Amino acid sequence: MANKFLVASHGKMASGIKSSIHTLANKGDEIKTIDAYVDDSDYTAIIQDFLKSLQADDRAVIFTDLYGGSVNQRVVRQVLDAGKQEQVSVVSNANLAVILSIVMTGNLTKEAIQGLLEESQVCLVELEAKEETTDDFFD
Amino acid sequence: MANKFLVASHGKMASGIKSSIHTLANKGDEIKTIDAYVDDSDYTAIIQDFLKSLQADDRAVIFTDLYGGSVNQRVVRQVLDAGKQEQVSVVSNANLAVILSIVMTGNLTKEAIQGLLEESQVCLVELEAKEETTDDFFD
Repeated sequence: MANKFLVASHGKMASGIKSSIHTLANKGDEIKTIDAYVDDSDYTAIIQDFLKSLQADDRAVIFTDLYGGSVNQRVVRQVLDAGKQEQVSVVSNANLAVILSIVMTGNLTKEAIQGLLEESQVCLVELEAKEETTDDFFD
Repeated sequence: MANKFLVASHGKMASGIKSSIHTLANKGDEIKTIDAYVDDSDYTAIIQDFLKSLQADDRAVIFTDLYGGSVNQRVVRQVLDAGKQEQVSVVSNANLAVILSIVMTGNLTKEAIQGLLEESQVCLVELEAKEETTDDFFD
């Protein structure tokens, strides 16, 4: 039983996020990436190979860059075609916060993932001097 | 009067996002990036130069990777030290959806930005076959 991860984006955001997770947490080797449309190659086979690599008791999360985007559409279609929707979660509009927290957790149930999403939402930072008294909690 | 953008991350997520925006929208040349901690150089000067480059009637958005992370802390500190908090918005836990929509819009008031945030949140995709009848709306 293993947890497996794929990050898929238009352009190089996916490999960039893998680099960021390596920088922050010295992890990332276990994350597969798709940088789609940087050349003419078809990335469908990478999604299919990732899905085929899942053992019956593995859990997986696929992160995509844009909800409604073609990368997300293609990922969803492949998960459904492979009948893996119970085993695989798809998180869209992904950011580094959610990917980092999901990769670091051991629990990939849909309920646990939903909880991590709620803690990782995009936010407008309050720009007031009093905000600046806390220590960094990421290095 | 111009709109200016900076994306700052641990590792190479920032330059990856710039690549993704180029791939999706053929834009991105106007986006400055900081890939922090990929070497020993200090990125504070890049933040300071970005802030100094702002004319009195420019508006700017700085996107950071992790709320509470050291990159975000340093950005906030520099904006406050420069006294630019009215002119600059800081969006944290940034994702491609929010950066793309903010770069594409002309309106960088805090209210407009807040509205774009709400449309760009991280989400768990429903994996049901009926979801798959819509056309791609991003290429």
